[in-house]
Amino acid sequence: MNEFEIIEKFFIAGEAGRGVRTGIGDDCAVLQPTANERLVVTTDTLVENVHFPPSSPPEKLGYRSCATALSDIAAMGGKALWASLALTLPKVEEPWMARFVSGFNSALAIDDTSLVGGDLTQGPFTITWHITGTAPNSGPLLRSGGLIGDDIYVSGNLGGAAYALEFLNSDDVKLALLEPYWYPHPRLELGRAIAPFATSCIDISDGFLGDLGHILRQSRVAAELDIGRLPVHSNLDKLSDNTATSIALNGGDDYELCFTAPSRSRVELDSLNKTVEPRITRVGKIVAADEEAYVPRSTEGELLQAISYRHFE
Amino acid sequence: MNEFEIIEKFFIAGEAGRGVRTGIGDDCAVLQPTANERLVVTTDTLVENVHFPPSSPPEKLGYRSCATALSDIAAMGGKALWASLALTLPKVEEPWMARFVSGFNSALAIDDTSLVGGDLTQGPFTITWHITGTAPNSGPLLRSGGLIGDDIYVSGNLGGAAYALEFLNSDDVKLALLEPYWYPHPRLELGRAIAPFATSCIDISDGFLGDLGHILRQSRVAAELDIGRLPVHSNLDKLSDNTATSIALNGGDDYELCFTAPSRSRVELDSLNKTVEPRITRVGKIVAADEEAYVPRSTEGELLQAISYRHFE
Repeated sequence: MNEFEIIEKFFIAGEAGRGVRTGIGDDCAVLQPTANERLVVTTDTLVENVHFPPSSPPEKLGYRSCATALSDIAAMGGKALWASLALTLPKVEEPWMARFVSGFNSALAIDDTSLVGGDLTQGPFTITWHITGTAPNSGPLLRSGGLIGDDIYVSGNLGGAAYALEFLNSDDVKLALLEPYWYPHPRLELGRAIAPFATSCIDISDGFLGDLGHILRQSRVAAELDIGRLPVHSNLDKLSDNTATSIALNGGDDYELCFTAPSRSRVELDSLNKTVEPRITRVGKIVAADEEAYVPRSTEGELLQAISYRHFE
Repeated sequence: MNEFEIIEKFFIAGEAGRGVRTGIGDDCAVLQPTANERLVVTTDTLVENVHFPPSSPPEKLGYRSCATALSDIAAMGGKALWASLALTLPKVEEPWMARFVSGFNSALAIDDTSLVGGDLTQGPFTITWHITGTAPNSGPLLRSGGLIGDDIYVSGNLGGAAYALEFLNSDDVKLALLEPYWYPHPRLELGRAIAPFATSCIDISDGFLGDLGHILRQSRVAAELDIGRLPVHSNLDKLSDNTATSIALNGGDDYELCFTAPSRSRVELDSLNKTVEPRITRVGKIVAADEEAYVPRSTEGELLQAISYRHFE
């Protein structure tokens, strides 16, 4: 069983509890403490040697671990209010800790998020962030809302982080190559800007095709992608078109947003490109699924199979 | 530096953020999403070989890991609404997972708490719970509210869990001896019952003296304890009085509540013993601190120094 199958089998309960609007299975859970309010919460664990290399630069690791968790709040269109950090370390060295804290404080500053608690324990190096945010008035962006005929958009450029992974342990490499991996930008402002228009949204952590696949399965639809429109990161310019496209389609760790919106919202969404960073690009449309094949195809009809990393597989 | 010093130095920010009523340094953070509302949140990590022995029975470990996190909500007088679980495992075995889930579901059932999310990752065995609760109308019970003249109470019996630790890896031991360690009972109902009267509260995870010490330091007071009144767990009956008292004073893992309340509330608190489990016992009173010595003394004037476990010390 891979992680998704284990979660499906053991952790998804039959009925939602009190105040639970959306439980396990989206970027965040959606909670309702009082009648007119929604909170979104997410938990993200990073383990040394699994999610990041040993001897990772502490400020980069502090930033990245926190930014990737904030990205789940962005994918709901939310505002990230409060963070808790569970940090397990074999030993504590003050200079390391100061750099790590400085790194995650830069990430928390993006959305003016407060560190409100956590736990510090001795053991194998593991970082777990728990972030609580408020959902937008128009409602949090779920994965399950994509409709046939919707446009599919992606933010920023893809493939830069996956390409950086190749050079992560190399000594002689330009920093700009590593930048997309260590400094993903959680798209919080953009998430809130698209929230009034978008019908579904996910952040791209496992790869564009794999994460779009979550939207398709949970919305019970398929997709037609115009691969030529895919925004590929400029760090991949020297690669062949085929290789670059493949990395952009399947590479993880970009933390851009992939979302769907009805075509009547094109004018409003296009105009966001003048006011909100980064650019969003329309890359395809939602189509009806043949039976239960919730997979994307190219405009030429080629089936685009995702190659995603899964724990325990 | 031990864990408390590290937290003090690196993690306690100068000013509270938006909606943060109480940040790092209590059993829970206290958050205020809207004007008339308070949430309490807590994060608890357990690491194999540090917090629990390898090959721990999975249903016991599932129960205990969750119950000890819920105990922080009890210490605020709160109602535990939502839980997230970050679970890191070297490998997944279905029978193990089924027993682990069944264990924590028993703990979640105590306060009808919903599992709303989490993260499942591959790596060294670590369990992190994040619980969100609502605070009582009379306000969450902080550690900092103890006042000179207040009575000091403790719930249930002490020392049973610490005594069990001696036998945890032994094959031939009566299950009743291990029960207090594996099945701590988060005192959620009691926490809510005392909330209208109590001025401060903490759950006893590191030992009665050590945890009472947190109340004393954060309330800037001292304490006089009537050691003879201390409720000692019946599993310690065969030990000498001195040994049993020392375990009850310093042993951790009991997860009973220690709280303070003004003496005018004695009648109401005594009457709780007829309606709410477990019994509460008055064991001393809050007195003025000499300079900055926020430590408890016995009624005979003996200084009672806590012996607590601290990570990284």
